[in-house]
Amino acid sequence: MKNRIITISREFGSGGRTIGKRTAEAPGIPCYDRELIQKLAAKSGFSEVYIEDTGESAPGGFLASAFSHRYGEPNNADYLWKVQYQVITELAEQGPCVIVGRCADYILQDKADCLRVFIHADMKFRARRIVEEYGEREASPEQRLREKDKRRAAYHRFYTDMKWGHAQNYDLTLNSGTLGIDRCADIIRGLF
Amino acid sequence: MKNRIITISREFGSGGRTIGKRTAEAPGIPCYDRELIQKLAAKSGFSEVYIEDTGESAPGGFLASAFSHRYGEPNNADYLWKVQYQVITELAEQGPCVIVGRCADYILQDKADCLRVFIHADMKFRARRIVEEYGEREASPEQRLREKDKRRAAYHRFYTDMKWGHAQNYDLTLNSGTLGIDRCADIIRGLF
Repeated sequence: MKNRIITISREFGSGGRTIGKRTAEAPGIPCYDRELIQKLAAKSGFSEVYIEDTGESAPGGFLASAFSHRYGEPNNADYLWKVQYQVITELAEQGPCVIVGRCADYILQDKADCLRVFIHADMKFRARRIVEEYGEREASPEQRLREKDKRRAAYHRFYTDMKWGHAQNYDLTLNSGTLGIDRCADIIRGLF
Repeated sequence: MKNRIITISREFGSGGRTIGKRTAEAPGIPCYDRELIQKLAAKSGFSEVYIEDTGESAPGGFLASAFSHRYGEPNNADYLWKVQYQVITELAEQGPCVIVGRCADYILQDKADCLRVFIHADMKFRARRIVEEYGEREASPEQRLREKDKRRAAYHRFYTDMKWGHAQNYDLTLNSGTLGIDRCADIIRGLF
C-alpha cells in the first residue's frame, strides 16, 4: 500500500512552512522542509543557499534553458531536479510524512497516496509576516513577494507543466490570511 | 455586524449543490440554489430556464456584448445581473446562509462576512455524477462538462474580472472527487 504523504505548496510568506510543521506534530510524522534542503545539499554537493535559490526559478531563464535543452547540454538545475526527484521519492517510500515545496506533489503523483495542499494569502498578510517573522527589510516587502511568486510559479511550470495555484491541481487550497495558520493546520490534520 | 455567508462556486457535476445543502443542515441556515433561481425569475420576469442559462455564459458572446456596451444599449443579461445583485444583497442582509453559484462571492465581497468556497473534481468523477445523478445522456458527458466549464468561467470573468477557479480568489477550494462530498461539507461546516 502506498504511504500517505501531505505535500504543501505555498506562496512565499503565507505560513506554509509553519502549517506543515504543525500538521505533522499531532500524528507525529516527519515534516521535510529545511531538512529536505539539507538532504539535497548532501547528495548533490551544492550549497543549501544555491538549492534554495534554484528551487525558485526556472533554470537559467527560459531562453538559456531552451538552448541548453536543445543541444543536450547538462545544466546544474536539471541535475538538481534529478537528485530532488530521487530524494523525495525515497522519503515517500520510508513512511507517511509532510513535504513542503520542491514540487513534491508532482514528483509523487503516482508514487504515494498524496494529499496535495496549496497555501496562499493576500499581499498585506504576507508582507507583514515576512517583515515580522523572517526579518526581511521593510522597504517594499510587496515587491519582494511579487518577485518570489513569479519565480516559484515559473519554476513549477517549467518542471511540471502545471499551473501553480490553480485549484484544480490540488485536493485543497487554503487562505491562511483569512482562515488563520492554526486553523489551516487543523483542517489538514483532520484529513490525514 | 455583517452576517456570515458561505458562498459556493463550483464546477458543473462536482457536487457543489449537494455540498451546499449538507453544509446548511447542521447550523440550520437556508441554502439558496434552486430557490435563488426562483427568486430571480419572480423579480425579473424571465423564466427559470433562461436564468439558469444566462448564469453560465457571457452575455451574447464577447463581441456582441462589447458592441452593445459601447453604444449603451441595454441587454437582458445585464438587466438580470442587476436583479441578481439586488436579490443576493438582500438575502445576505436577512441572516447567515449558504449561496450556491451566481457570483455571490463577488457581489458580497464588501457586504458580508463571506467564506468563499470553490468546489471542483476531475473529469471522470464529474462525468459519472452527471450521468448517474442528473440523468444526462451518456454520449460524451466529458464534452458537455468542458462546454459548461468554459461558459461558467467566461460568465464569471465577464462580470467580476476575477479568474474562476484560481485559488487566490477563495478562502478554500476543495476537490470533491478525492475528498468526497460528505467530507467537503464537514470541512466547510467546521468553518462556519
